[in-house]
Amino acid sequence: MRSDDRLPDALRDLSFQTNFLTHAEGSVLVRFGQTRVLCTASVEERQPQHLSGTTKGWVTAEYGMLPRATHTRTKREAARGQQTGRTIEIQRLIGRSLRAAIDLDLLGPRTITIDCDVLEADGGTRTASITGGFVALALATRKLRSQNVILQDPIRFPVAAISVGIIDGEPRLDLDYAEDSSAEVDMNVIGTATGAIVEVQGTAEGKVFERRELDQLLDLAFKGIREITNAQMAAVG
Amino acid sequence: MRSDDRLPDALRDLSFQTNFLTHAEGSVLVRFGQTRVLCTASVEERQPQHLSGTTKGWVTAEYGMLPRATHTRTKREAARGQQTGRTIEIQRLIGRSLRAAIDLDLLGPRTITIDCDVLEADGGTRTASITGGFVALALATRKLRSQNVILQDPIRFPVAAISVGIIDGEPRLDLDYAEDSSAEVDMNVIGTATGAIVEVQGTAEGKVFERRELDQLLDLAFKGIREITNAQMAAVG
Amino acid sequence: MRSDDRLPDALRDLSFQTNFLTHAEGSVLVRFGQTRVLCTASVEERQPQHLSGTTKGWVTAEYGMLPRATHTRTKREAARGQQTGRTIEIQRLIGRSLRAAIDLDLLGPRTITIDCDVLEADGGTRTASITGGFVALALATRKLRSQNVILQDPIRFPVAAISVGIIDGEPRLDLDYAEDSSAEVDMNVIGTATGAIVEVQGTAEGKVFERRELDQLLDLAFKGIREITNAQMAAVG
Amino acid sequence: MRSDDRLPDALRDLSFQTNFLTHAEGSVLVRFGQTRVLCTASVEERQPQHLSGTTKGWVTAEYGMLPRATHTRTKREAARGQQTGRTIEIQRLIGRSLRAAIDLDLLGPRTITIDCDVLEADGGTRTASITGGFVALALATRKLRSQNVILQDPIRFPVAAISVGIIDGEPRLDLDYAEDSSAEVDMNVIGTATGAIVEVQGTAEGKVFERRELDQLLDLAFKGIREITNAQMAAVG
Amino acid sequence: MRSDDRLPDALRDLSFQTNFLTHAEGSVLVRFGQTRVLCTASVEERQPQHLSGTTKGWVTAEYGMLPRATHTRTKREAARGQQTGRTIEIQRLIGRSLRAAIDLDLLGPRTITIDCDVLEADGGTRTASITGGFVALALATRKLRSQNVILQDPIRFPVAAISVGIIDGEPRLDLDYAEDSSAEVDMNVIGTATGAIVEVQGTAEGKVFERRELDQLLDLAFKGIREITNAQMAAVG
Amino acid sequence: MRSDDRLPDALRDLSFQTNFLTHAEGSVLVRFGQTRVLCTASVEERQPQHLSGTTKGWVTAEYGMLPRATHTRTKREAARGQQTGRTIEIQRLIGRSLRAAIDLDLLGPRTITIDCDVLEADGGTRTASITGGFVALALATRKLRSQNVILQDPIRFPVAAISVGIIDGEPRLDLDYAEDSSAEVDMNVIGTATGAIVEVQGTAEGKVFERRELDQLLDLAFKGIREITNAQMAAVG
Repeated sequence: MRSDDRLPDALRDLSFQTNFLTHAEGSVLVRFGQTRVLCTASVEERQPQHLSGTTKGWVTAEYGMLPRATHTRTKREAARGQQTGRTIEIQRLIGRSLRAAIDLDLLGPRTITIDCDVLEADGGTRTASITGGFVALALATRKLRSQNVILQDPIRFPVAAISVGIIDGEPRLDLDYAEDSSAEVDMNVIGTATGAIVEVQGTAEGKVFERRELDQLLDLAFKGIREITNAQMAAVG
Repeated sequence: MRSDDRLPDALRDLSFQTNFLTHAEGSVLVRFGQTRVLCTASVEERQPQHLSGTTKGWVTAEYGMLPRATHTRTKREAARGQQTGRTIEIQRLIGRSLRAAIDLDLLGPRTITIDCDVLEADGGTRTASITGGFVALALATRKLRSQNVILQDPIRFPVAAISVGIIDGEPRLDLDYAEDSSAEVDMNVIGTATGAIVEVQGTAEGKVFERRELDQLLDLAFKGIREITNAQMAAVG
Repeated sequence: MRSDDRLPDALRDLSFQTNFLTHAEGSVLVRFGQTRVLCTASVEERQPQHLSGTTKGWVTAEYGMLPRATHTRTKREAARGQQTGRTIEIQRLIGRSLRAAIDLDLLGPRTITIDCDVLEADGGTRTASITGGFVALALATRKLRSQNVILQDPIRFPVAAISVGIIDGEPRLDLDYAEDSSAEVDMNVIGTATGAIVEVQGTAEGKVFERRELDQLLDLAFKGIREITNAQMAAVG
Repeated sequence: MRSDDRLPDALRDLSFQTNFLTHAEGSVLVRFGQTRVLCTASVEERQPQHLSGTTKGWVTAEYGMLPRATHTRTKREAARGQQTGRTIEIQRLIGRSLRAAIDLDLLGPRTITIDCDVLEADGGTRTASITGGFVALALATRKLRSQNVILQDPIRFPVAAISVGIIDGEPRLDLDYAEDSSAEVDMNVIGTATGAIVEVQGTAEGKVFERRELDQLLDLAFKGIREITNAQMAAVG
Repeated sequence: MRSDDRLPDALRDLSFQTNFLTHAEGSVLVRFGQTRVLCTASVEERQPQHLSGTTKGWVTAEYGMLPRATHTRTKREAARGQQTGRTIEIQRLIGRSLRAAIDLDLLGPRTITIDCDVLEADGGTRTASITGGFVALALATRKLRSQNVILQDPIRFPVAAISVGIIDGEPRLDLDYAEDSSAEVDMNVIGTATGAIVEVQGTAEGKVFERRELDQLLDLAFKGIREITNAQMAAVG
Repeated sequence: MRSDDRLPDALRDLSFQTNFLTHAEGSVLVRFGQTRVLCTASVEERQPQHLSGTTKGWVTAEYGMLPRATHTRTKREAARGQQTGRTIEIQRLIGRSLRAAIDLDLLGPRTITIDCDVLEADGGTRTASITGGFVALALATRKLRSQNVILQDPIRFPVAAISVGIIDGEPRLDLDYAEDSSAEVDMNVIGTATGAIVEVQGTAEGKVFERRELDQLLDLAFKGIREITNAQMAAVG
């Protein structure tokens, strides 16, 4: 049995508290069990350098964890003077994943920055960030549309993310921190309601796994992704 | 009239949501109007270097602002690779102020780090941080006491902080961002319910002010501090 | 047709120049077509902090690209004062992948650092680094064994890596830079000769892909991995 | 009795060696007892970014301490790779204080940077920096006026700074290092000859103080400020 | 006798593997005994700031050492976040030396960056870098000439560099690492085939040396420089 | 004629103001014409890591330039977050030069740090730093001797430094800033009163020079060094 009595293929309690902040063009406090991430979308009328001379837009992401989001205090990255490798890896993944959800030509020559700040961490902060990041992004593009800054909503489809893993030989959906720490295989799947893959990252720290296990985990992940995209669409309204 | 119809000597709506996080020894989400700061207290069984060889403890603070706490997005300090001068100035003030509230001998050879992270900023983030930081600190020391880690609660008295200023010639209590930006004189007062001063910092950016004005502002500040300390004590319970 | 007349399921010319350096415990210059990476293994009789108190060893990796490995000069990371996000992401992947190839208990309380420095880049530098990194690692552990520093070779099995992708709808093995830039889907597979997965990372920058495509790409990747592991074993001797 | 036989309300020996350097538009070596600070004013025909589009000028300050200004050698900030929090706090205070002394509209679209470098430190380096910084600033603006770069001297009035504190219950003026280290209350007052306040910062590290004490200290501070402004005016000539 | 049976006035085996890389405008792998340095010349159509407004070009250099070029692994500068003082000193020397070899007016408004990356180090890496850097530079300017980007080759004459030193009282040419470590006097001479000096740096770490010894060492160095410039000219063709 | 009517082989006015600071074990304000450098020697009872386990001492140096030592303000290195390449090159040279003047075995297991801070710069700051640094070092070792911390003064002989150069074909001693900027050849010689060389660095930025010129410059330099060492010995007393 899982510590919170969940079935192996069950998500944790999931909620989206939208418009959590006043100023951000889009904002949401997303919660998966004890994991809480504040995701905001900030629109700026500027292009990154590599797009200058085009009419395309860009979506990028930054990720951070408050020092006491974790069991024991983690050193503040701003005080250390640099972001950890883990943070950099995660924020690049969030950015790539969310760019799959949006038509950058329709967005036009502007940049949307998705900030994902973890208030409390209990596993799955990167997938919660992508999931909440999509909601913030969609709220922001809808706002741009309602203000006639853009003529057509550039969102193509919801993108959701979830972790899956094998613990004691059992494939499980949506790992919490304790499960994540003891998983034999750990995979993050970012995808759509129709089963298309945006990104898949599977690893077996210090071990290997079989294609049969990969297939089981993907099935499980897409079951979760379908449920999450429903919740995302309800949150965006 | 003030934008939110407050009287010149009135505080903004003030609330403390204690135990906001699971793991921190003390935590509170403090709100002054639209300003929201998450304050946590983390206890570590180590001393800073300058106290090694003694039996004294230490209280230190760090301050941060989420990128979209502000009207337009502010660059993330972790990504810039260093904290701004403003951040450093503020977190040193928070640390000094809270050390007045505690007997470091009674705390014993351990360090409590107060993290103040601004989720939303509408003026007064440094005074809200000190005010909420005291609540987090008191919750943490009470927990240490209840676990018999320490034999006597080291808290000496509540310490609260508030901003005061002169706008259009009128002394006002608890400035919001718009008032702060247009104030002729701006003062932060950190003190106790009995009118004792922990720290006072008054400035008139590019101007000067008179001792008579200083006195008016101090009177106003201590009116606020008395109200805030009552709320702090209710929050700590 | 591919620019170098390869079939879709063919690897580029692959060679390993072992013992390229005099001092390193293991070293190899690995070449996949025009991509050349110098991989070295350095043994140090120290443990990382998270293993202190155990008898386990560790394998870690660092990655770098010489400034003129690329078509136009890239700014030197040492001069910029920090490694790019891409570098950090890659070196973490190399380290994780190689730790699957080795029994850290048998390695004992020492650290092997794999340095992968790209002399020339034409796509697939991260997979070439893992592939060459394994050879350097195996040469180093064999040296430790021959010196009786360790009693049993800790290598479990060869680990190889290869990129696969879909270009113009066609699944292809071992993409060069031009193919990588125009691929609709891009996947890096790290695995073993028996078809076990060490890590899989598939992405469709700005797009999505189907599970059927994932399966085709994995088949192709493991065809390449079998050929590469043969070459690795010949190189290690 | 104080270590140098001063009365509680007496300043240390104070001197200004003006035009200490050849190139700087204004320069002075200011001495308060053993504390010596070299203050220079550098005029540059550029505006800070936040004033672009206006015709206003700016005054900013930087502070540094030579490594052996102190009893034992302090690590060089340039070698550490960053300024300490204390340095940042001090140089922000110097800049704010001096901007009160000058009409930035009359200064016109240029920047004056005040560099305060402590050659020897025996307490009161920040107040000596402000006091000497004013002299350097006034010498520089007079030079601009004599060269007809500006048509009217933008200096509004002298600004001086002094520390006051309570030691063994006795309020004292102009603390040296030993007094500063043992003070119960420590206050820096920046003001004018007519008793107007530019900035006041009072703190009781780890303790509190009463408004009656604040009043005593302010009286004492302004006695000193009147004497210092006389010396400043004599130095500027 | 020297460890490799060389005579005191003999160079180590010297070779130049030109066009080692595909993309660089000039590239060479230079070898002096066990010391191997990859030198590349990258042409960019931009001027450094201090030449803007002129029609002159610039030559600059960067130097690096792969982590395992040395007997034991050296920490990667990119990971440390900064270049060591030794690296900075060396790359400034390389740049100055190579600017003597070229007419910057004839080069025109462009920058050539010489990257010298040490693959294996056995003494004399800085002189090998200058020597190889000249070859890379000459290959690059010849390419510019063949493409009619410039109308006249700006190379004035070959510049070569060599180390000399006194070991056990004996002047020796081209020191390897073991000799360099035990030398009483160590000198690097950069010069031309006709005996002109570009730069000379002689030091006796912790000791002194006589002018007579300086003269002996210079004679020896120029014997080597004549041989090296012949090899450089053969390599450039 | 030179701008200050000096003969080609004449030094600028030279003075040493010893014991300029109270706390430093040795200190001197050295002046060569308009160039003024504050040199201090700080003794610390610790060894650098590479000497641990021995009974030897160490001498190291740091160099800095106050922002307004120069004609126009130079950015403060502490604010830039790193030392420039020029600074690093200079401080390494100062350290090497002064280690020739001292017997590190006699110094015993301690470190003397020489800080050279340029108050005003008019050419020759690095040679003035070495020259003044020697005086500070000798004052410090004499103090250690007088306190019986060491039993024998470890100073071996005075070490002095001077710049020489060729301007309009004329060899000149002790270049000021204007001469240094227009010199065809520029050489720094560090040596002793008896004509022994500690270090020699000669360069002809973008040009070459002949051995005959080298000889002339060395003759001139040692004429100056003899005069400077006399002044050093008088200053040390």
